[in-house]
Amino acid sequence: MLLSELAAAFDLILSGEDCEFTGLNTLDEATESEVSFFANPRYRSKLAQSRACAVILAAEFAHEVKRALISPSPYRDFARAASLFARRDGEFSGISAQASIHPSARLGENCTVHPFANIGARASLGPGCVIFPGAYVGEDCALGTGCVLYPNAVVLAGVEIGDNCVLRSGSVIGTDGFGFVRIDGKMQSVPQIGSVRLEEGVDVGANSCVDRATLGYTSIGRDSKLDNLVQIGHNVSLGGQCLIISQVGIAGSSKVGDRVTMAGQAGIAGHLNIGDDVTIGPQSGVPKDIPGGTTGGGSPFMESGTFMRSASLLPRLPEMHKRLLRLEKELAALKQLIGKEEG
Amino acid sequence: MLLSELAAAFDLILSGEDCEFTGLNTLDEATESEVSFFANPRYRSKLAQSRACAVILAAEFAHEVKRALISPSPYRDFARAASLFARRDGEFSGISAQASIHPSARLGENCTVHPFANIGARASLGPGCVIFPGAYVGEDCALGTGCVLYPNAVVLAGVEIGDNCVLRSGSVIGTDGFGFVRIDGKMQSVPQIGSVRLEEGVDVGANSCVDRATLGYTSIGRDSKLDNLVQIGHNVSLGGQCLIISQVGIAGSSKVGDRVTMAGQAGIAGHLNIGDDVTIGPQSGVPKDIPGGTTGGGSPFMESGTFMRSASLLPRLPEMHKRLLRLEKELAALKQLIGKEEG
Amino acid sequence: MLLSELAAAFDLILSGEDCEFTGLNTLDEATESEVSFFANPRYRSKLAQSRACAVILAAEFAHEVKRALISPSPYRDFARAASLFARRDGEFSGISAQASIHPSARLGENCTVHPFANIGARASLGPGCVIFPGAYVGEDCALGTGCVLYPNAVVLAGVEIGDNCVLRSGSVIGTDGFGFVRIDGKMQSVPQIGSVRLEEGVDVGANSCVDRATLGYTSIGRDSKLDNLVQIGHNVSLGGQCLIISQVGIAGSSKVGDRVTMAGQAGIAGHLNIGDDVTIGPQSGVPKDIPGGTTGGGSPFMESGTFMRSASLLPRLPEMHKRLLRLEKELAALKQLIGKEEG
Repeated sequence: MLLSELAAAFDLILSGEDCEFTGLNTLDEATESEVSFFANPRYRSKLAQSRACAVILAAEFAHEVKRALISPSPYRDFARAASLFARRDGEFSGISAQASIHPSARLGENCTVHPFANIGARASLGPGCVIFPGAYVGEDCALGTGCVLYPNAVVLAGVEIGDNCVLRSGSVIGTDGFGFVRIDGKMQSVPQIGSVRLEEGVDVGANSCVDRATLGYTSIGRDSKLDNLVQIGHNVSLGGQCLIISQVGIAGSSKVGDRVTMAGQAGIAGHLNIGDDVTIGPQSGVPKDIPGGTTGGGSPFMESGTFMRSASLLPRLPEMHKRLLRLEKELAALKQLIGKEEG
Repeated sequence: MLLSELAAAFDLILSGEDCEFTGLNTLDEATESEVSFFANPRYRSKLAQSRACAVILAAEFAHEVKRALISPSPYRDFARAASLFARRDGEFSGISAQASIHPSARLGENCTVHPFANIGARASLGPGCVIFPGAYVGEDCALGTGCVLYPNAVVLAGVEIGDNCVLRSGSVIGTDGFGFVRIDGKMQSVPQIGSVRLEEGVDVGANSCVDRATLGYTSIGRDSKLDNLVQIGHNVSLGGQCLIISQVGIAGSSKVGDRVTMAGQAGIAGHLNIGDDVTIGPQSGVPKDIPGGTTGGGSPFMESGTFMRSASLLPRLPEMHKRLLRLEKELAALKQLIGKEEG
Repeated sequence: MLLSELAAAFDLILSGEDCEFTGLNTLDEATESEVSFFANPRYRSKLAQSRACAVILAAEFAHEVKRALISPSPYRDFARAASLFARRDGEFSGISAQASIHPSARLGENCTVHPFANIGARASLGPGCVIFPGAYVGEDCALGTGCVLYPNAVVLAGVEIGDNCVLRSGSVIGTDGFGFVRIDGKMQSVPQIGSVRLEEGVDVGANSCVDRATLGYTSIGRDSKLDNLVQIGHNVSLGGQCLIISQVGIAGSSKVGDRVTMAGQAGIAGHLNIGDDVTIGPQSGVPKDIPGGTTGGGSPFMESGTFMRSASLLPRLPEMHKRLLRLEKELAALKQLIGKEEG
């Protein structure tokens, strides 16, 4: 492909003479026949050394590379360029004779069902769904158009999944919520008779879990993206366009707004309300509601400024304690001195 | 079903005239043909607005709804009612010709083995076990009566599982414990030649892991329930009726008593003793033994009262530091003043 | 087997008369026909009571047991002894007719492919690989000699895996990294067109995830061992002989040196440099680079001494706050007193 073709495809400005390139790579690893990109200032020093034949970057840095593909939004335009070189896993297409598909299941046009995939009774798949080996679609599940279930993804009975959802390997949608009650002194599971609803464009990471509701639905809003090893409890309602990073846990019945970001290993207690446009830092522990627009971190969760100051003082606690001791000593001495004078 | 029939089945008192209902739902989502329940005071305001034809609740709230099913324990009786409407995943029954079952495996009566399930040499399943697609039972495993392995659950060789255990999708029982030792400067794995024993009624959540012991057994006591994404290290001994919430990790060789609750993302170090009836808060980090009956939280773990006060002061650390500075200044000034007088 | 044979095999000194033994067990559970070992001082009290016919231990403790197998490194030599009694899961060998193997895949000598395993187009397996049921090898993957994929392990397209790597059940190698960007106000996934490279001797725990790079490779160095439920983000570079304990998360593009240990539930932010021989405590949160050789813990991460002192003061925060209040009162009183004298 020619740089000029790439530039034309995405309205980039090519500075430097045109040439062929074969793919994309990092600034470090790109060869003379590969294009790279520059978006994170942290890596500016790599610009000069990169062997890339061209770099997608902002105008101000164009002079630092031999050939520039100037973009108002380099990361976005790298993403677009990458889509030209991306390929989907799994070359198999059609319906494998080694799959197990219940006769009452309804498959849309151009669905692919790999060997060892299971599709249950009365399940319905929209057109163009791809079900990889070992993936499980339970009875009465309804999948929209163009959904992809990667190897060993599991969707249990009756779950509703919108168009263009992606369930990564080992993700589990619709397992029973964690509800138990002592009956006659014995721990009994509370039947989880609700379900799960994923709206259009939801992406669930590898080995993440979205629990079935006790009643009603656990729901995830349009275009929300879950990373790997995330836990979504029963009856959670997550808004649209949320980014939930790896190993986050959201406990049962919490309601989360739109465009909320939760960084890695954060934990949200149950029955809370988290507003729109909230950003929650890594390893945060959220014990109570958070109003919309808040940014913060820490366990317990604090607004950003407070959290930064508090966190920076943790390593200084020993010093603070020493100073407290000194003050106590000095004050005692002073009182004694004055006591003497009085007497 | 009639409200009066439900009331009769579980000794509830129906206040209001009888009528048909079709199922159960939340106070918010229930239609006029559905029954709901009220147990968490947080949702009291929803009682008035609910369209539910009846609500399972405590006598004191009966007047707030059009029809009440009065219960001494509403959540428990909701659970009982829900069991009438619950259904088990998987309509297939019998032994699938698409499963792989070793000829030496012994299956009890009325077992169901789905397609793509694997049952190894000399494995034995009690009556009424259900093995879903992609589930794996290794050689020499012994499962009791009525165990359910959901899709893609894995039980490795030689594991012993009591009656009525439930292994959720993607759970892994009996993978090697994490033991390595440098031999001639090279990291070598320590063979894990022990096994895992789950007592009767244990429930293991989706994608949770219970490691095989180095020697002897990793064991989980009767009716203990593990949520999703939980890690149980090798040679851990967990008591009975424990509730281990999502993303908790218990490191190797720790001994945990009965009726212990660990909230989400808590971590327990190795080789510890945690007594009976201990309750450990979310994200706690437990570095040492905890005596029976203790309730607490924090990292490091503190008794409840201390933890509450300590946690509430974290956001006030910056303020405390300012006050410390002011005290130092004022005391210095005072000493100078007095110094002058002396002179 | 005779004690004398075991001693001879691993250069142990047998003190006490020879006898037959049948296996290995813990000090607690060993019978008179089993050998045990003693390495952790915490369990010294168990030496006297143990029924083991012999114990592998250091010379100084030999007199505390009826028969000793004296070793300079008891845990190491226990590991060696255990290897004599270890057995590999899965008795099946050969290539199952119930597996799905693409005609263009190349399998080395003595490979075992279990039922319901999938091997994609152009994938290549070195000699002696074992692919368990439900394991997935994507197209163009390259596995070295003697790799083991346990049940339901997943390796997505184009991943490169060195000799003698072990992928535990439910582990997922090469799932797309978590990269999204708003394009025209819509959250779009950034195609992850890189791959993953595991060097020789890497062990990935059950349900752990290693993400595919955006560009280039996510890489894990020789003999590094990952425990269960670990998350390795895209473009992470992990060195050799690292030990990454359960539920650790390493965010995208961080570079980790050799012989680094990360304890359970630690989290490493993205784009960081962690030096060689670093040891990171449990639940640590690492927000910035760590120089080689550092040992520490806490969130934010602190050097060990500081962390210990800081952590020990957390439970004393309420007391520190009380003392601060008292000082303020006493100082105010003193100033008033002196004020009076002045006047």
